[in-house]
Order: sequence, then C-alpha cells, then structure tokens
Amino acid sequence: MSKKNKSHKSALKEQDGITPPEVLSSLSANFIKSKRQQQPSIRELVDGISSGNITALSRAITLVESTNPKHTQKANAVISACLPLANKSVRVGITGVPGVGKSTFIEAFGNYLTSNGKKVAVLAVDPSSSLSRGSILGDKTRMEDLVKDKNAFIRPSPSGDSLGGVARKSRETIILCEAAGFDTIIIETVGVGQSETAVHSMVDFFLLLKLAGAGDELQGIKRGIIEMADAIVINKADGDNLRAAKSAKVEFNRALHLYPEKESGWSPKVSLCSAIKREGILEVWEMIEGYVETTKASGYFERHRNSQNRFWLLQTIEERLKSNFYNSKKIKAQLKTQIELIEAGKTTPFAAAEYLLGL
Amino acid sequence: MSKKNKSHKSALKEQDGITPPEVLSSLSANFIKSKRQQQPSIRELVDGISSGNITALSRAITLVESTNPKHTQKANAVISACLPLANKSVRVGITGVPGVGKSTFIEAFGNYLTSNGKKVAVLAVDPSSSLSRGSILGDKTRMEDLVKDKNAFIRPSPSGDSLGGVARKSRETIILCEAAGFDTIIIETVGVGQSETAVHSMVDFFLLLKLAGAGDELQGIKRGIIEMADAIVINKADGDNLRAAKSAKVEFNRALHLYPEKESGWSPKVSLCSAIKREGILEVWEMIEGYVETTKASGYFERHRNSQNRFWLLQTIEERLKSNFYNSKKIKAQLKTQIELIEAGKTTPFAAAEYLLGL
Repeated sequence: MSKKNKSHKSALKEQDGITPPEVLSSLSANFIKSKRQQQPSIRELVDGISSGNITALSRAITLVESTNPKHTQKANAVISACLPLANKSVRVGITGVPGVGKSTFIEAFGNYLTSNGKKVAVLAVDPSSSLSRGSILGDKTRMEDLVKDKNAFIRPSPSGDSLGGVARKSRETIILCEAAGFDTIIIETVGVGQSETAVHSMVDFFLLLKLAGAGDELQGIKRGIIEMADAIVINKADGDNLRAAKSAKVEFNRALHLYPEKESGWSPKVSLCSAIKREGILEVWEMIEGYVETTKASGYFERHRNSQNRFWLLQTIEERLKSNFYNSKKIKAQLKTQIELIEAGKTTPFAAAEYLLGL
Repeated sequence: MSKKNKSHKSALKEQDGITPPEVLSSLSANFIKSKRQQQPSIRELVDGISSGNITALSRAITLVESTNPKHTQKANAVISACLPLANKSVRVGITGVPGVGKSTFIEAFGNYLTSNGKKVAVLAVDPSSSLSRGSILGDKTRMEDLVKDKNAFIRPSPSGDSLGGVARKSRETIILCEAAGFDTIIIETVGVGQSETAVHSMVDFFLLLKLAGAGDELQGIKRGIIEMADAIVINKADGDNLRAAKSAKVEFNRALHLYPEKESGWSPKVSLCSAIKREGILEVWEMIEGYVETTKASGYFERHRNSQNRFWLLQTIEERLKSNFYNSKKIKAQLKTQIELIEAGKTTPFAAAEYLLGL
C-alpha cells in the first residue's frame, strides 16, 4: 500500500464485518487447489477406462476436448496408454439431412445392439456445434432409452472452430471409447461443410440415411455423398410411405449402379427401415456384419484403417503447414495484394505464388 | 601446344589436307554463337505472339515447357507481357476414355469453328506423356485437316513428372495462345490420375465425351467426372448405334438429375453427335455459346475465372509447402518410422504429426 493511502482512513477498513479480499483469495486458492487434487491422475484415468468406468472415460474425453495445453498433454498421455486396447471395434458412420430421423434410427439401432450383448458408443461430429451449441446429440432427451442403457455411451460433438479440430478430437475419443470396451462406435454427422468426408475417413462403414419418397428425394444430396455410402437406408418406410420407399429403393439402386466398384470390393446396398417401429434394424446390422466379415477376410478392413491413419497423419501435417504459412504476418499482408494483381491481369497465379513463397 | 608436342612430328600435322581440331572447335563455337544470336528476344517473342505469329508462339511455349531456369525466367517475362492480351477466349475442356473418338470430335469441332471465323488452339494435358511419349495429340496425323488449318494451332501435352507441373505449363500456354489471338481454347485430357480435375479447373466449360451404348456405358466413369461435366456428348450416334445412343441420352439425363444444382446455375445437357459424319457439332457449339452468354450475364463467368486463379495460387503454394516439407532429409528419415509406429498402435496420427513438425 502506498504512503498516500496509509495517510487517510480507507472506507473499506471501516467495514469490519466484511472479510478482506486477501483472505477471500487465499480461501478460493485453497479451494481450487483441493479441487485440482481431486482430478484423477493419468494412471487412474487409464485404469478407469480400461475397466469400463464411464466417469473416467468422460473425464478423459473432456481433457481431449480442452483447449488448455496442460490438458492436451495429459490427454495425449492417456491416449498413448489406451492405444494397445483400441482398434477392436466396428466404426459406423451415419449421415442424413435433418428430419430424416437420425436420432430415432440411432436409438433403435443402439438398443438392438445392446440387447444383443454389444457395447455401443455414439459420438457426433458437428463443426457447427460451437455456434449452434450442439445441434445434434446435444439434446440427449431425443434418445431417452439409449441414454438409460448401461451398455451405451452417448457423447455430443466436441465444439471447435474448425472441422480439423473437431475431427481430431472425435478420432481420439474413438480410441478412448474402444479402450473402455465399446465394440461398436457410431459416429453421427449432420453433414455441415466437409464433415461427411471427415467422418467417412474415420469409420469402417458409412451409412447414408434417407427418407422415403420418390425420385425427388434423390435431389439435395450433397456431391459425393452417394459415392461414399456403403449403404443407403431408407427410413420411415411404413404405412402410407411404404410404396414410395420401395420405389426410392429401386431409384437408389439405379444410382449406385452408376458408380464404379469400390476399392473394398463391396457393392453398396439399399435397405428399408422404420426406426420408429423398430423394423429393418436387424437387416442393417446383418449387412454391416457381412461387410466386416468380407473385408476382414480380404484384408481390406485392416488396410483401410492403415490408410485412414496415413490420411490423418498427412492431413494433420498439411493443415499445420498451411496454417503456419497463411497466418504469418508477412503473408497476410501480401496475399490480398497478389490476388488483386492476378485479378487485374498483372501477374499469374504461379508468379504470385513464387513471390509469396520467397518472402 | 606443349613443348613436348612441339619436339616431335605429329602424325596429324603430316596430313596437311585435314583442318586441325583447334580450327574446328573455333568454327563450331562461332556457329553455335551465331545460332544463339538467332534466338528471339523477349520483345521479339511478345511482338510475334501479339501479331499472331505461330513460330513465335511455339518458341515461347517451348520456353514455358523447358526445365532450364534461364528459359523459365525468359518465359515468365514473355507471359507477363502477354497477360494484358489474354483472358479473351472461351476455354473448353474435353475428356473421355480412349476409343471414344476424342481426336475425331476435336477435328470436326475445330474445323467447324475455324470455318465460322474462329481461331482455335488445341492443347492437351496428359501427365503420362513423359512416359508414353505423348499418348494424346502426339500423333498429329489423327487430326490431318485441323493440322493444315491456318486458323488452328495444335500443341501436344507438355511432358513433366507431375500433374502439377504439366498443369502449370498448360495454364501458361493458354495465356500465350490467347495473346496470339486464339479465341477458342480446347484442352483435351485422357483422364490419367487427377488430370480431369486439373483441366476442369482451367476451363470455362467442361465436356465429357461418351460412347453410344446402353446403361453399361455408364460404368467405368471415374468418380466425380459426371459431376464436373457441363455437357455429356454421346459420340458415334449414327447408323446402328443411334438407338443405343438415344437410350444412353435418357440414362445420362437421369444421372445428371441426381446431382444438385451447379454454382453456375447451368443445368448440364446431354447431346448426341457423330464426329465422323460431322453431325451434331453445331449443337455442341451452340450449347457452349449459350453457356457463355448466360454465365457472362450473371457475372459467374468472370467470378469463376477469378476463383480458378485463386485456386491455382493456393494450390501452387500448398504443393510447394508440402514438397519442401516431405523432401527435407530429416522428414524423409522419420516419416516411415512414424507410420510404422502408428500401424503398430504405438502412436496416433496426431502425435506423429506433432513429432514430425517439431523436427
């Protein structure tokens, strides 16, 4: 306290009943410290996860999702320790436009699996969730039964400013879930931006959920989605919709016929279901089992996972190289100018690139 | 000449009739020097190109295609000077599998255009040409009429080890051809690797040439090609093939219907032609004219060119960033090890990326 302050009676000092701020700080520091000490260690988290403890799994995922570098460091250590226990699941990606009944389908599908002895983790990849505060899976009440199911684990999309960030977190969460004994990982996406591509590159089987309804339904599918699908499942194929669903099945089969054979050797299938009536769910699972059996026998299953890993390695490297370059002050200052010069016909893209790389 | 040589009578000296080697060297040096002096200057090349001189154009393209850094420097100066004269053409990309009749189509199409007052440059993008020594356009005899046509200029694919290199050279060649007064640039590709994508991103209009023949013909189309096409032209729609061609047209129209609307607002069209009988060629050109008119009116034509330029700028930068990284000795030595560790489940792609970026 300065001499000047000492020389007059402070208004604060007169109020004796109020705890001085110094003491408050010290109290809260101790409180925070004791809370910190309650945080499980890396060993405790790994032991918890490997024995299937959901609290430990959730805490580890929270570390993965954190932007605090200390948390990231701890998360990396947990993931490293979990790696030998991972990779033993079937990873299924599910996409479809809003309104197609994804939550109802996942609930029916998940319940079917758990009642057949499976342990199911449901994750979401939604790069828009930081804005919309979780547009998918955010409202767990939409999967009431599955939430109560002891053999199911539901986790909303991590939030993050970039798809790359969200995708990394989801891929690491898959490892943690597998280490916790989940043998079927379902990854849902609403298909914002390139999120289907990201999900496609982290799953073994990619399922496109569609609505019953004639040829018009084929419209509005994002470019490339049909090509990525291992199966198209037409939902709400019941009652008055059944006829339309059957004709949509014919139409989709024709569409799939247009594409060349997949590297997996698998011919994508179209099937009908009514998630709300729990019909056609068994057929979807049998199809996935058939896929896993065939591709494991051919060696494609493992080759595919290896190639996905290489993809994520190179993808991560290249994203970082780009962000380092474009975020540098020198480049930021000059990039716009060079683009303007190109548009004015005063330089070529190649000459501009040379110039920027030489800065 | 050394003292030792002087001290004995050389066998060579005895043959008085033969010009001594010293004189020979000096003569050839002068000859080469005089030849070099015949190489046109940048100014001469630019003047030649802008007055439509084909020899100047060819020489400038040869500089563009050269791997000699001095030539590259000269080429860049020529391109810079040509830039204000460029951008005034319609750029049409043509792809199709071997046997579809691309050469016959391009000859018929090119002849139709030149006989209607157009100046047509035909280029090729074929990254395999350095191996196969020019699988397309290499044999100009396949376009006998067009080769003789004064208003047509045909240039085989530049050779280059990478698609990126070939694509850069082709893009620069487009600028030179436009500066030389060619108002229609046709860029042919056989579709090796990603070459269709490269060509698609340097043209205004992308045309997929197909063969007549029923639904089976739809197979074997590379992923994404139909999505890129502004038009599908079914060739050899004559005689006994006509019926099959008509049914293929229905099938393709159905296929195109499956895709969402293009950013250009243009609905891709399917048309029939018989290049060998020169039928249906006018219709293709009218379609392209319609496209150009519509997209110029909407502003898309220019926006699209600007976005192509930005694409090439960023593409060039990112390719260079990657090649600098992956070609560095440190990375070369460690990348394989990290991939092996990932495949053995001992690290994650993200941890491996961090490690490599930190080297």
